[in-house]
Amino acid sequence: MNPSEALHRFGEARFAVMATLRPDGSPHLVPITFALVDDSQVVTAIDWKPKSGRPLQRLANLEHDPRTSLLVDERNEDWSRLWWVRVDGRGRTFGDAPVRWLEALSGKYRHYAERPPGGPYILIEIDRVVGWAAS
Amino acid sequence: MNPSEALHRFGEARFAVMATLRPDGSPHLVPITFALVDDSQVVTAIDWKPKSGRPLQRLANLEHDPRTSLLVDERNEDWSRLWWVRVDGRGRTFGDAPVRWLEALSGKYRHYAERPPGGPYILIEIDRVVGWAAS
Repeated sequence: MNPSEALHRFGEARFAVMATLRPDGSPHLVPITFALVDDSQVVTAIDWKPKSGRPLQRLANLEHDPRTSLLVDERNEDWSRLWWVRVDGRGRTFGDAPVRWLEALSGKYRHYAERPPGGPYILIEIDRVVGWAAS
Repeated sequence: MNPSEALHRFGEARFAVMATLRPDGSPHLVPITFALVDDSQVVTAIDWKPKSGRPLQRLANLEHDPRTSLLVDERNEDWSRLWWVRVDGRGRTFGDAPVRWLEALSGKYRHYAERPPGGPYILIEIDRVVGWAAS
């Protein structure tokens, strides 16, 4: 899959899994909603969905080490239809968001159009996009 | 979600995302099929599906650092129905598999019953199970 097709499929996906690194270096995973910004960045927000803990591990992790990886994957019992796209980058946390991040999120999810996320926000600078498809 | 319910939901899921650590410590993600063994281990196999590279990064990563994390997540546009389970553990690679690992995989996936995976195999000792549900 070429990088342009991979990034397009990534941007259309409704959920991704985000990996960050705990302070001890071990991997930490959480599913996220997200939106592309300018095809070179990814924004994801802490929203009003219940969370498994406060303060959030993902934010503490990124403040310690910005390296992150995002995966979207198509799941199907017909394994010839599987595909995935992985985006590696560096994430930073922000207490507030410029309008274009909020527009990217609310343009993709009606949930956010109806009730904007409160933040904080994570902006990821994309370093690499890799896509794979079974056929 | 209590650990027993979380482990049950994890074991029933058809796909998980596996995080390992590259030799430089950055996170690496790949979707996997998998099966529980004795409710204390997870087995996943390198199978005959096309792969994005050889030798496989996940195997090299685990030989360098055994720390791994697995996530299964329910995806739904009704966000009140979302849930996820994260399993943290330590993974080891094996060139061959005892019968009970193959039985666990082929009992869960007809694909493997019809055509067993060729290996190598990864066995993950579960250290921690965390589950979350929106409601």
